[in-house]
Amino acid sequence: LDSKLPHVGTTIFTTMSQMAAKSGAINLAQGFPDFPAPAYLLERLAHHGQAGLNQYAPMAGAPPLLSGIERLSARCYQRSVDAESMVTVCSGATEGLFVAIQSLVHSGDEVIVFDPCYDSYAPAVELAGGSCVHIPLMPPAYHIDWQALESSITPRTRCIIVNSPHNPTATCLDRAGWLELERIVLKHQLWLISDEVYEHIVFDGAERLSASCFPALAERTAIVSSFGKSFHCTGWKLGYVIAPPELTAEFRKIHQYVTFSSFTPAQYAIADMLTEHPEHIDELGSFYQQKRDLFVRELAGSRLTLLPSAGTYFLLADYSAISDLDDMAFCRWLTTERGVAAIPLSVFYQSPPDTRIIRLCFAKGDDTLIAAAEKLCQL
Amino acid sequence: LDSKLPHVGTTIFTTMSQMAAKSGAINLAQGFPDFPAPAYLLERLAHHGQAGLNQYAPMAGAPPLLSGIERLSARCYQRSVDAESMVTVCSGATEGLFVAIQSLVHSGDEVIVFDPCYDSYAPAVELAGGSCVHIPLMPPAYHIDWQALESSITPRTRCIIVNSPHNPTATCLDRAGWLELERIVLKHQLWLISDEVYEHIVFDGAERLSASCFPALAERTAIVSSFGKSFHCTGWKLGYVIAPPELTAEFRKIHQYVTFSSFTPAQYAIADMLTEHPEHIDELGSFYQQKRDLFVRELAGSRLTLLPSAGTYFLLADYSAISDLDDMAFCRWLTTERGVAAIPLSVFYQSPPDTRIIRLCFAKGDDTLIAAAEKLCQL
Ligand SMILES: CSCCC(=O)C(=O)O
Ligand SMILES: CSCCC(=O)C(=O)O
Repeated sequence: LDSKLPHVGTTIFTTMSQMAAKSGAINLAQGFPDFPAPAYLLERLAHHGQAGLNQYAPMAGAPPLLSGIERLSARCYQRSVDAESMVTVCSGATEGLFVAIQSLVHSGDEVIVFDPCYDSYAPAVELAGGSCVHIPLMPPAYHIDWQALESSITPRTRCIIVNSPHNPTATCLDRAGWLELERIVLKHQLWLISDEVYEHIVFDGAERLSASCFPALAERTAIVSSFGKSFHCTGWKLGYVIAPPELTAEFRKIHQYVTFSSFTPAQYAIADMLTEHPEHIDELGSFYQQKRDLFVRELAGSRLTLLPSAGTYFLLADYSAISDLDDMAFCRWLTTERGVAAIPLSVFYQSPPDTRIIRLCFAKGDDTLIAAAEKLCQL
Repeated sequence: LDSKLPHVGTTIFTTMSQMAAKSGAINLAQGFPDFPAPAYLLERLAHHGQAGLNQYAPMAGAPPLLSGIERLSARCYQRSVDAESMVTVCSGATEGLFVAIQSLVHSGDEVIVFDPCYDSYAPAVELAGGSCVHIPLMPPAYHIDWQALESSITPRTRCIIVNSPHNPTATCLDRAGWLELERIVLKHQLWLISDEVYEHIVFDGAERLSASCFPALAERTAIVSSFGKSFHCTGWKLGYVIAPPELTAEFRKIHQYVTFSSFTPAQYAIADMLTEHPEHIDELGSFYQQKRDLFVRELAGSRLTLLPSAGTYFLLADYSAISDLDDMAFCRWLTTERGVAAIPLSVFYQSPPDTRIIRLCFAKGDDTLIAAAEKLCQL
């Protein structure tokens, strides 16, 4: 059996979660909360299941959820979105990214990604018959080198995939960055896939920014977002894509043959949550900022050098004062010998730089964070 | 924007369900029950959501659900399946089919499908860079012409997609048919994708048959099945794929970047259902046979000519005694003017024959079936 993805193994998230479970380690690797989803949301899930909303949802999404997404976009970004022609609910942001890539990328096309980046982009591009051009983000601040970006554009370049707030570096594009991106996308008539799954998780009073804030850019962008990240229910696998009508039409053509529709009762439960608790999303930044601050405070005595986290629920930590092991070996040791699981930064690169950095997830209960920090302080 | 699927529109199921809703017609078009899912299942969904199982399930599926699938396979087909290496839970059979096709089909490969067939096969093959070779099933019994099949095999043929019980014709492969299929797959070293979503819905005392009943064939087969069809919850979008380890490894490589995992609480709820109510699945054939018989009885006075239904929850009906309209026009008229929505048979063909046949779904409450039959008897 010839593999379509010969160089791909099991995702690091599965690998590390399995290793954490086997070792009984605290899992700060795969990004998911260990605290409960909102009680109201769970009550609504139970309600809609028992009320009988268990058959296929409409292919583009349940009507009240589509309205909720319209209101969210208006409230957060003052953008008026026509859900009927521009929004598609999908089975997690992963499906949204996969289908957006399948919609845009033809055989032989090039897609620009910034390394480090999420591990699904490159295989999805490859399955669409395209290839990725990897532009490294510039440490220590992991900013985009705009000149490197622009000079990597060729006649085959079809789109750029951007992610802000950024996993794994926890950096955010500022307004100037978004404007630069807009200029380049428009000038070269590219498409943008904007992975905004952490859109509401920004810290220190920073403005929430989205491709939705830049009208001309938004005309050429598929925005991918996630209810799992925003409502502490990553296992619900519910996300959505906002794109201009022409791209949405193409997106739906493919989505209908990839999953067709998503878990019906959850769509209605999230719709209720958006209506009844609009504050949940607005408070998400300060909710996670408190966790970040607690975790950073608890790690003050450790020999890790923490990099700044401006958004997402991740934090990078440099362990070069502790060990010379490469980051995969260090994560294995940390999990099995010291009881804390983390993700090695190198897995997010095509060509990893020679650094000693791990990613820690702080979407955890305060007790979990304190217990993990205690172990990390003993390294 | 260049379309990847230029000839594809919105699926017929979406089109007809929207038309039915707009006209207030009884929807016998898209295949889904209008009666509730089992109360126990809904209670377990509520329970697992509130008990806190809301984060990512393991990528291959929740452990108790994987065990349930092992037991099901042993009980129904005396097949011993190692779930760890052979089963992957996915977001509906549609995702299972899509990923199985992506796993097997390389650019330039040919895939044999039998027309009429489910509408997702060909676009999925196309997106993988392959092309479909369409072999017509032979009316009136819609059997496979084995000679036509075998002579359509070329050095580029990669796999065959078979579906039994068959949507839309409601026919089933018998043991001799499966053996013939096995012979051909093995002789030409092909792969088989076996769409078995209606596996438990067979009538008149027929044996439930699956690729799982034929060990040598099973070694070269991806079996795709659906909990939505078996547990009256099509909106849960939960299915699974059984494949030999080598193919499962490849399947998971792709699945992890298409959806990664499926709605967690539902996986545990279905697992409970498989444990506590194993009889549900064994009674499914007689449950739907009663509905078929009721519906056929109520249609006795109509001018439709009903074709036999040996499995699935569909029934084909020839309306040539009633109208000369082509089947799309007839379905539109039937929905908007006569209040019953159905699916035109022609949409399941690449080159539709000149017939006047519609597909009716009888997965409906008895009252719905009686009301629909009354309208159909007035044609
Ligand atoms: C789909 S598992 C990966 C979860 C995640 O987004 C991360 O840990 O980066
Ligand atoms: C995914 S909608 C189609 C449902 C179905 O299986 C059918 O009606 O044939």
